[in-house]
Amino acid sequence: MTAGPLSAEPLVSWRPGATRDAILEFVNQVTTPGSSSYVPPGERIAVIEHDGVLIPEIPRVQGVFTLQRLRTQRDRHPEWETLMPFRGALEIGERFFREVDPETALVVMAATHSGLTQSAFRREVQSFWRTARHPAHGVAWSRTAYLPMQELLDLLRSQGFRIFIVTAGSADFVRAISQDMYGIPPERVIGSQVETGLVEEDGQLELRRIPGDVLLVDGAQKVLAIDSQIGQRPLVAVGRARHGGDIEMLRYSERLGRPSLQLLIIHDDFERDFALFDEDPESLAAAARGGWRVVSMRWEWRRLFAFEPLPEALQ
Amino acid sequence: MTAGPLSAEPLVSWRPGATRDAILEFVNQVTTPGSSSYVPPGERIAVIEHDGVLIPEIPRVQGVFTLQRLRTQRDRHPEWETLMPFRGALEIGERFFREVDPETALVVMAATHSGLTQSAFRREVQSFWRTARHPAHGVAWSRTAYLPMQELLDLLRSQGFRIFIVTAGSADFVRAISQDMYGIPPERVIGSQVETGLVEEDGQLELRRIPGDVLLVDGAQKVLAIDSQIGQRPLVAVGRARHGGDIEMLRYSERLGRPSLQLLIIHDDFERDFALFDEDPESLAAAARGGWRVVSMRWEWRRLFAFEPLPEALQ
Repeated sequence: MTAGPLSAEPLVSWRPGATRDAILEFVNQVTTPGSSSYVPPGERIAVIEHDGVLIPEIPRVQGVFTLQRLRTQRDRHPEWETLMPFRGALEIGERFFREVDPETALVVMAATHSGLTQSAFRREVQSFWRTARHPAHGVAWSRTAYLPMQELLDLLRSQGFRIFIVTAGSADFVRAISQDMYGIPPERVIGSQVETGLVEEDGQLELRRIPGDVLLVDGAQKVLAIDSQIGQRPLVAVGRARHGGDIEMLRYSERLGRPSLQLLIIHDDFERDFALFDEDPESLAAAARGGWRVVSMRWEWRRLFAFEPLPEALQ
Repeated sequence: MTAGPLSAEPLVSWRPGATRDAILEFVNQVTTPGSSSYVPPGERIAVIEHDGVLIPEIPRVQGVFTLQRLRTQRDRHPEWETLMPFRGALEIGERFFREVDPETALVVMAATHSGLTQSAFRREVQSFWRTARHPAHGVAWSRTAYLPMQELLDLLRSQGFRIFIVTAGSADFVRAISQDMYGIPPERVIGSQVETGLVEEDGQLELRRIPGDVLLVDGAQKVLAIDSQIGQRPLVAVGRARHGGDIEMLRYSERLGRPSLQLLIIHDDFERDFALFDEDPESLAAAARGGWRVVSMRWEWRRLFAFEPLPEALQ
């Protein structure tokens, strides 16, 4: 793959300043032949979290899907009315997925996302994405991709990078829209997965989703999954400053004495989107040690969504 | 990705006849817009075994690498001199890997392929590939790709297919040469893997290969790995008729009432390469039931290697 020229104004939704300059300078360094920091196209790998980085994290879209499945299946599972954590999710609704730890959320997801074949599950997910609307923004959920991140994907792609989504969320859930929303094909989505087993149905081999253990791709497991499925150390990593689940992935993309790029996104735009103000100190400390760029959505992104009116600075 | 026109003479090393016609006809059907069998580019996935399909299986190149590591490490492992299966491999040499079952071969591979970091292991593999020569053909091992399969990869790629190697051999071993030999990047190689663990070395995160369990990607595990890493049912599958390890993968690529392509390669060219004459009856029975094309190298391939003199029929 040969790299094309940078577009006339890349990262136009990013505020001019140190972070935007650092990204452009890094991309220029590693893609300029003859530069001492040059990295051949084959090694230009970027890994990016999904929830809270490419798309708003509140409410969690997969949480909403899970609740929908929980409610349609509750008649067949009377035990859920009393059994935790299912009872909690049914009573509290979407906020449940915001407040519990990832392992507890996974118990509910695993139970509601299993029992069907992969083909049937993928049809359910696709049908959800076709109709789901974001409750706060009032647009189709599939239109809530953050515009500055889309511009970053475009910039990296134009310079020969292969981009992978590496998410603690369900791989199958994100794969349903990764091509349409981000131009990222399903095989470049790495994420948490339930177990599957091979079965024969109507003379054809099918995979059935087994309730039980889930492989949670978070923390150190993200690095193991990157190594196992990509087989190379990434050059760019973008994560978010919550739970510390992206620290290992970002650290793994650091290269001793050679340039690499790490962005740590802070979900702090309480006016245009939603803010939690719960950045974990460990992620911020790791950013300071590693020289990562900490990206405040509120400050660094002039425009969040394509459906937003063009702000004055961009008119 | 848009599909280009077929090259003037695709599959030129394949003997004109039913198999070559069937491949060209299939590719034409699924890539012609408006055809009732049309498959959009996003779903054009091909999965292909490595050993014995893309490259000769005898001797197994990974077996030779394993023996080399076994011999350089034997001083540090006096127990190998008496302990099976290590003693067997040291005494019998390359034929050991031909005669034992895949699980036993894996025990030796896991022991010799672990203990180092992924970076160090990959350097070892790359250095092996740079110097290894095929003992029978007398050329660099990296030049022993089967020419007819290279032409098939070119044909599929020109028509917008994404091609994955799915091998019972070590993913890391094949990834070292997949781009250079086949134009297939490392992340499109799915294969058997040892466990790894995250460690810190010189302030950088590294993965260390752990001796112990190996995930053997063979039989049903091939389908599970395809689903987990690609997330789509393949449209084309190419395997070999030994051990039955490719039956599930080829069956999984069948589509009820819609075209798909399965090739089962028979390693039978005792004059130009090597023949084992040990095709397993189960693979052949599955081929008959599924309408797969059984490909005799000796009969269907007019030229096996690029280093071979051009046969009369092609002059």
